[in-house]
Amino acid sequence: MKAVIYEKKGRVRLVEKPMPTIQEPRDAIVKVMRASICSSDLHIRNGGVPRAKEGVVLGHEFAGEIVETGSGVKKFSVGDRVAVNVESFCGECFFCRRGFVNNCVEGGWELGCRIDGGQAEYVRVPTADMSCTRIPDAISYEQALFVGDVLATGYWAAGIGEIQPADVVLVLGAGPTGLTTMMSARLFGPAVIVASDVNEERLALAKARGLCDVTINPKKQDVVEAVRGLTDGRGADVVFEVAGAKNTFELAWRAARPNAVVVVVALYEEAQTIPLHRMYGKNLTFKTGGVDASKCSEIMRLIEAGRLDTSLMITHRTPLNDIMQGYDIFANQKEGCIKWVVTPFEADKPIPGETF
Amino acid sequence: MKAVIYEKKGRVRLVEKPMPTIQEPRDAIVKVMRASICSSDLHIRNGGVPRAKEGVVLGHEFAGEIVETGSGVKKFSVGDRVAVNVESFCGECFFCRRGFVNNCVEGGWELGCRIDGGQAEYVRVPTADMSCTRIPDAISYEQALFVGDVLATGYWAAGIGEIQPADVVLVLGAGPTGLTTMMSARLFGPAVIVASDVNEERLALAKARGLCDVTINPKKQDVVEAVRGLTDGRGADVVFEVAGAKNTFELAWRAARPNAVVVVVALYEEAQTIPLHRMYGKNLTFKTGGVDASKCSEIMRLIEAGRLDTSLMITHRTPLNDIMQGYDIFANQKEGCIKWVVTPFEADKPIPGETF
Amino acid sequence: MKAVIYEKKGRVRLVEKPMPTIQEPRDAIVKVMRASICSSDLHIRNGGVPRAKEGVVLGHEFAGEIVETGSGVKKFSVGDRVAVNVESFCGECFFCRRGFVNNCVEGGWELGCRIDGGQAEYVRVPTADMSCTRIPDAISYEQALFVGDVLATGYWAAGIGEIQPADVVLVLGAGPTGLTTMMSARLFGPAVIVASDVNEERLALAKARGLCDVTINPKKQDVVEAVRGLTDGRGADVVFEVAGAKNTFELAWRAARPNAVVVVVALYEEAQTIPLHRMYGKNLTFKTGGVDASKCSEIMRLIEAGRLDTSLMITHRTPLNDIMQGYDIFANQKEGCIKWVVTPFEADKPIPGETF
Amino acid sequence: MKAVIYEKKGRVRLVEKPMPTIQEPRDAIVKVMRASICSSDLHIRNGGVPRAKEGVVLGHEFAGEIVETGSGVKKFSVGDRVAVNVESFCGECFFCRRGFVNNCVEGGWELGCRIDGGQAEYVRVPTADMSCTRIPDAISYEQALFVGDVLATGYWAAGIGEIQPADVVLVLGAGPTGLTTMMSARLFGPAVIVASDVNEERLALAKARGLCDVTINPKKQDVVEAVRGLTDGRGADVVFEVAGAKNTFELAWRAARPNAVVVVVALYEEAQTIPLHRMYGKNLTFKTGGVDASKCSEIMRLIEAGRLDTSLMITHRTPLNDIMQGYDIFANQKEGCIKWVVTPFEADKPIPGETF
Repeated sequence: MKAVIYEKKGRVRLVEKPMPTIQEPRDAIVKVMRASICSSDLHIRNGGVPRAKEGVVLGHEFAGEIVETGSGVKKFSVGDRVAVNVESFCGECFFCRRGFVNNCVEGGWELGCRIDGGQAEYVRVPTADMSCTRIPDAISYEQALFVGDVLATGYWAAGIGEIQPADVVLVLGAGPTGLTTMMSARLFGPAVIVASDVNEERLALAKARGLCDVTINPKKQDVVEAVRGLTDGRGADVVFEVAGAKNTFELAWRAARPNAVVVVVALYEEAQTIPLHRMYGKNLTFKTGGVDASKCSEIMRLIEAGRLDTSLMITHRTPLNDIMQGYDIFANQKEGCIKWVVTPFEADKPIPGETF
Repeated sequence: MKAVIYEKKGRVRLVEKPMPTIQEPRDAIVKVMRASICSSDLHIRNGGVPRAKEGVVLGHEFAGEIVETGSGVKKFSVGDRVAVNVESFCGECFFCRRGFVNNCVEGGWELGCRIDGGQAEYVRVPTADMSCTRIPDAISYEQALFVGDVLATGYWAAGIGEIQPADVVLVLGAGPTGLTTMMSARLFGPAVIVASDVNEERLALAKARGLCDVTINPKKQDVVEAVRGLTDGRGADVVFEVAGAKNTFELAWRAARPNAVVVVVALYEEAQTIPLHRMYGKNLTFKTGGVDASKCSEIMRLIEAGRLDTSLMITHRTPLNDIMQGYDIFANQKEGCIKWVVTPFEADKPIPGETF
Repeated sequence: MKAVIYEKKGRVRLVEKPMPTIQEPRDAIVKVMRASICSSDLHIRNGGVPRAKEGVVLGHEFAGEIVETGSGVKKFSVGDRVAVNVESFCGECFFCRRGFVNNCVEGGWELGCRIDGGQAEYVRVPTADMSCTRIPDAISYEQALFVGDVLATGYWAAGIGEIQPADVVLVLGAGPTGLTTMMSARLFGPAVIVASDVNEERLALAKARGLCDVTINPKKQDVVEAVRGLTDGRGADVVFEVAGAKNTFELAWRAARPNAVVVVVALYEEAQTIPLHRMYGKNLTFKTGGVDASKCSEIMRLIEAGRLDTSLMITHRTPLNDIMQGYDIFANQKEGCIKWVVTPFEADKPIPGETF
Repeated sequence: MKAVIYEKKGRVRLVEKPMPTIQEPRDAIVKVMRASICSSDLHIRNGGVPRAKEGVVLGHEFAGEIVETGSGVKKFSVGDRVAVNVESFCGECFFCRRGFVNNCVEGGWELGCRIDGGQAEYVRVPTADMSCTRIPDAISYEQALFVGDVLATGYWAAGIGEIQPADVVLVLGAGPTGLTTMMSARLFGPAVIVASDVNEERLALAKARGLCDVTINPKKQDVVEAVRGLTDGRGADVVFEVAGAKNTFELAWRAARPNAVVVVVALYEEAQTIPLHRMYGKNLTFKTGGVDASKCSEIMRLIEAGRLDTSLMITHRTPLNDIMQGYDIFANQKEGCIKWVVTPFEADKPIPGETF
């Protein structure tokens, strides 16, 4: 079958690979119907994820159909349509019992990093009962595609933001994670969601689709002043820092009102400076970290109910064959690309020029 | 000026009264631009509110313009447009400090019950800084009219319901309070809001205006079964009992899933039976009580942001002169009446046939 | 081996039974070192628990040593000392994932009710990984004995009481569950714990051992007035109704301050009356239900740290042979009995006069 | 009267000053019975608090008797014994209504910084109803002395720490604020409180008086390893960083388990580095800031109930006359000094050698 592998630092290739097989009783084999490229795939390609294994099949955000199950799979059967979580977890350890599944003592990010992932025609999914979320009949693969990663991230971030109805919420960054953060934040009843980004196209999309109410381009406007103008001079009630740019950490705490919650979703390449003496008495709460995938059923129910819709992020869809082009376009935000989605089973042919 | 008084049990009249005057430094005089009839007014008329004083001007849900202020009023000036709270509170006592302003040791429901209220041309509002909420320029009196009572009630109820995103919420009763409960519940991101009422017209309105997703008429369907059908057999995650009918208290706890929150907003005329041994192990939480008006600024901000809109409840609007007709139509739910609103200053003439 | 069976309504006997054996991979066999009589055992005897099976071995509160494990037991080995939960649960269903394990769709109260329990020398414990809590070396069986039932109940009740530091907490009932509720409530920092009971001996014990600060005997004092005297006339901040007597439900809501939480732990034999119109505007929250056993590890850690100590409740300890005497004394609160504990393996001899 | 003034950077003096008088209706004059030296006084002396006014009487932690009240004081009368808050607040603004009184738009730290404070015989206290907490008859001035500052700080810190019963709590720093943090943390039922400090004397005191269970001296032991040894390798559930030393910010996040809360109470002189990429996926919450004084009544009730006792911190007490010696001893932690307390009205005589 065809699959995208991380060959070595700087190099990703579409190749032929053998079909995956069941290895443990709790495994399932999933036929991939839709898979996306995630910025974490770019991190791996660039050598920024030391634990990624050379030769691994990439892809940790995908949905498909179960075509085989191990003897220990209880919740799913062949033919079931599922979205797959970026992270696996045991459900029983100290952290899982408290809902902190991304710190599961046994699990973590395995698929598309340590073991073969979903930018392929088929993929083996371990502990399938925990890792998969059933897709209801009325929901398409594309609608469900982001449940296990970028939407779970936005949903997790919004969920810890302590948003109260009537709040003014600031989201720094309107890329894929920023957008899912906005749509998840909307579930908590804020009066106003403010989106900030240097990419006008993304701001326009967010505004047009009702994900935010106000947009700010930091190249044109002072973000802190603009937010104060919306809040009787106080600052934002909740800030989500999703941008991860040079000055956005500082921007986040400066734009927050006293006693605000600042959720830091972005992954920085460098250490940040936190000048507590400059913000003394401001009594900010900083919540940091990464997605946990413990609420995928809730997310799926909200999609089914029409309360969450990520389809607007899919700007490009192509056969698996054309994914290498997608890596280029997505990485460089060309052509207004937000999410590049591949469809392994609609129009794919043999990989041109590859022989095995 | 004209005003509606509670003469004695069973009798309400539109009469001429002297203009109100400032009595305490923190008083303000408000020119009433819009006032409504509330079901509590009917309770008073029917003698069901013993603490109501005979001769008092009725009306505790109104909005208007400040025309005079006492020397101790700090936040408002003549010309300000305000919505007025049903309850007054000190802001400093044990209960107010915890946000339980309806149990203020000094305050409570005074206007239109113990002291002259707002079904009149002018009204004296005590502790105006606490009792009034400023209406932003972009908001009409009608949009702001319900902030201090029926909308505050729905908002309070939804706020204590512990609704989680993706929940299935059941609201028993689609009258004015049921409708404001639904629109407030929506702020907390439930997947599905289910409305139950015997009045098909009200259900249709709630559905058409997006306040609920599913409607149930208990005359035609078993509510408990219908809710289970929507929840994999579990029952509703949160139930709001707003109906106050003969069997709705029991319906509420039966339709709730184990470990649900049941918010009891309705005011019953009789004691209810709570057969804990029949619901043993179901681990329900019952939250009971009445509106607190501590979040009127937040409510007004949500109206301004377009997140709350109660204008759909105004089915009838007339001059103050015609309010007695409104008492009849509203009380008997004639003509699809949800809320009857009077407009003292647009077209009113002398009360026909009254001489003083 | 010896075991206490529920023969039929009204009759409990100590008999010889065959040793239990492993039936499922996740089973473990536990050698019972300490077991207690619980008031639920009396309910079964009296025919008050319809789902209890005739002939079942009683006993759902016990601790012992694992002497055999099925192939699917992962966390425990032969020789481990464990306390056992009254309830089993799957850990994976909708309710378990939210911590509401007593509403597990697969589990519930099985041991000593539907399947053979722990008033015996040996017992088979299903899903042992979920049902057992390891006893640290420094902790005796007696210290750990109540972790899975009566202490878990008090701990659950206190945990949902929303106690704030400096609160005044009222506990109605100073029997075993009342006592564990008091000691668990203490963990949340109340200023004052008030215990109410008609049994002076129990009040004296609670006071002497520091479980409460103030005691009230309703035969001698008006509870509502006494509590108001301690709270500037407001009433208790949190009330735990553990007594389950004729008028204690009403006492609970009357003694509570406005906006208090009332936790109803007691199991009544009859329906209660909730006159909401008499408490209108009091805005009480009623939390009802029964123990969940999801926090037994936390409880064990607190015992190990010396923060919880239930040993004071063990007023009687005898060989298993003498348990029938215990049923009489415990049921009738003779001899100051709070908890009757049996020790199957210290001094037991053949059951006198029984032949099989 | 005698009073300690901040003359200019580096210089504090005991001088004669005129008696304070009522200036506003809500003022009260307090006769100072006990006052302490706080590390913030040292910050002012060292020029580290730019907003401090030269010539101001120092002292913001004191208790005394009301000897005169303005016409607008409602809650207190002459003769009342009170503890005074470090900060004043209006009780009505956006922040006060949410309990964030230290961000009151009108208030803040005034006494002993911008206006004359309490290291004096008498002091004018503005907005006395908000700024004072009544001392119950059974409580001495010394027991109540720290309510408004160092105890309020520890109480605030513990209150936002989200401590769950059975948690392992780490407190970095066993000075006055560390000690009040420990005793306040105890109110939330942790299994183990671990204190870390380089001062063995303070550790010994904390341990001996039951404020902590385990002590660590970072000079002798690796803190992170020691904490892991107590937590199955996970790290502390909650960390309070009160030390403010060179490496304690890093120590705090390293010693915390994943998904822990880290409360940063310390005031650093320099910016800290927060290397989020090194703690990625650890999902820590950092809560920063300074005391709010909104819960002084609750604190006083806990003192009255015997649940909080700060008297152990008073290592030195002298007449006001000897306070300059106290500044030296307290600043340099000589003689085991934790808190230096002056008693203006027990044995003071004219200031030696001062003439005015």
